[in-house]
Amino acid sequence: AVAMPAIAQSAPEVKWRCTSSFPKSLDTIYGAAELMSKTVAEATDGKFQIQVFAAGEIVPGLQALDATQNKTVEMCHSASYYYVGKDPTFGLGTAIPFSLNTRQTNAWFLYGNGLTLLNDFYKKYGVSMLPGGNTGGQMGGWFRKEIKTVADLQGLKMRIAGMGGQVMAKLGVVPQQLAGGDIYPALEKGTIDAAEWVGPYDDERLGLYKVAQYYYYPGWWEGCAALNFFFNLEELEKLPKSYRAALTAACARANESMLASYDAKNPIAIQSLVKSGTQLRRYPNDVLDAAYKAAHSLYDEISAKNPEFKKIWEDVKVFRNNGYLWWQIVEFTYDDYMVRARARG
Amino acid sequence: AVAMPAIAQSAPEVKWRCTSSFPKSLDTIYGAAELMSKTVAEATDGKFQIQVFAAGEIVPGLQALDATQNKTVEMCHSASYYYVGKDPTFGLGTAIPFSLNTRQTNAWFLYGNGLTLLNDFYKKYGVSMLPGGNTGGQMGGWFRKEIKTVADLQGLKMRIAGMGGQVMAKLGVVPQQLAGGDIYPALEKGTIDAAEWVGPYDDERLGLYKVAQYYYYPGWWEGCAALNFFFNLEELEKLPKSYRAALTAACARANESMLASYDAKNPIAIQSLVKSGTQLRRYPNDVLDAAYKAAHSLYDEISAKNPEFKKIWEDVKVFRNNGYLWWQIVEFTYDDYMVRARARG
Repeated sequence: AVAMPAIAQSAPEVKWRCTSSFPKSLDTIYGAAELMSKTVAEATDGKFQIQVFAAGEIVPGLQALDATQNKTVEMCHSASYYYVGKDPTFGLGTAIPFSLNTRQTNAWFLYGNGLTLLNDFYKKYGVSMLPGGNTGGQMGGWFRKEIKTVADLQGLKMRIAGMGGQVMAKLGVVPQQLAGGDIYPALEKGTIDAAEWVGPYDDERLGLYKVAQYYYYPGWWEGCAALNFFFNLEELEKLPKSYRAALTAACARANESMLASYDAKNPIAIQSLVKSGTQLRRYPNDVLDAAYKAAHSLYDEISAKNPEFKKIWEDVKVFRNNGYLWWQIVEFTYDDYMVRARARG
Repeated sequence: AVAMPAIAQSAPEVKWRCTSSFPKSLDTIYGAAELMSKTVAEATDGKFQIQVFAAGEIVPGLQALDATQNKTVEMCHSASYYYVGKDPTFGLGTAIPFSLNTRQTNAWFLYGNGLTLLNDFYKKYGVSMLPGGNTGGQMGGWFRKEIKTVADLQGLKMRIAGMGGQVMAKLGVVPQQLAGGDIYPALEKGTIDAAEWVGPYDDERLGLYKVAQYYYYPGWWEGCAALNFFFNLEELEKLPKSYRAALTAACARANESMLASYDAKNPIAIQSLVKSGTQLRRYPNDVLDAAYKAAHSLYDEISAKNPEFKKIWEDVKVFRNNGYLWWQIVEFTYDDYMVRARARG
């Protein structure tokens, strides 16, 4: 009998709202927030309920972080790089061109300085972050004409967001900002010449293969894209310790689940796209080299003005260079052999 | 007041024991079980306690599964492929030569047929499984002499376990079974000529670089190695639903954490090994080709006698072939570019 009040006290009913930056139609991404919510509810016997809202239901997708900062909601599921307009440092929480691959990103978050450095930065916005899934490496976008040299990019209007767009601009592209649903009609009418979205599974559902034939890889501006759960810091502090632990574990589950889902779905979708006539093209080396150089000069420019970006980017760079020194040994040679073995049949 | 008894009822004190197949010195692997335990305790307000025991504290490491089956413990942290002696099908829960890489393995478990097929199989042993971490791709072992062709493997005594050992035997190697702590003295005295363990971080701590100079890659018998949490089915059924949800989420957290930990530590350790004089060598193509052929003929032999292995292996093979078709496009070309860019400086 003595224990009961203590149990009751430690299990208050808590209701949170989580606004997603994504529509329900992006089921792999949106589904990760739902899995997080379901896991928290089950682990707390229904006492801690987090209701997930699609982009636009409470606030527009790109206002998810602000809504979390100003306590319209307690948390959101978003992509840090949507907020590079506030500060380019936000880019480092999701993806910047020619940076870490998926496993390196998770390693940097959890066992490098990633979460510590980023959460120091996010504190200014009244939020903290946990990894919220990853798309894996993305494709390099749909083009209506082949790209054989950097010159072929001159003047192309391409739907591409964030820092990838800034780097593309240095190569002569005119970046366009369009929501997912607006890409198809713009490509169809020819008001844009190219567009990047995510990868085979999501791109197929937008139907982009019907209005652009050439599908480029790799998406060098997103060697992976980490999604993020952002929490209002004050609301997070109010949680009982057990709810916070359930939330942390649920986010980890969502993080691994989203990647596994993409890794299961993309291999099927890419084959279906090729059957529908999509032509796969690797970006020419001169485009990759020019983009690599432009990206690093952009990082130098930003670093010269922004000490916070500089500090975190330098840390990422060391992690990336060590990471790829190791990656080239086992992972890369194993994959290399397996790719060739599959092709031999 | 009405709610209190219900809460008390749904939060009974439950104590479980988890026996690990690993010593505490393998801190990255052992630590994942501890993280699982800590997460469960925190998420249940200390009501569900899982105490983790190192190999040998309750039962020897290789008896973890049996101890779980016969209810000596409620769960264990082990590697499915330790039990290939009972049935080769156990190999498919951790790693078999030339199979899925790390991300493909998680994708097959969670979004392919992996967990469903394996848990159907494990049911015969009274257990079910959740992923319990991954080492990532492993190294191909330490050799005292260089391996330039398959002929150089003839008669070599090599510490190598499981199906990797069976494939090596087809190439002329005499596989040896030795516990981790016995590898160093055996290599030093020359009673064995070669040994595989895990990868740079764990191998460095065993000091193997002091007694064998050549460190081969890739570990084609373990393109990754999935660790596993096994649960006694009857004990699992007894858990309140909320504890089971907390346990599932905690295992997912441990699963992603172990991989991230290896991905952060191996890049540092490989550099340290090279500074200590370790010579890195890629397995020659003729060894890889012979091993690939031998592995697949082993799978054919097993499949002819074992319908359960055949069913699951056929499923893995389709997943692997689709997986690598996709992998070669984005992930591989991105990594390829980044590896070269790093080397250029």
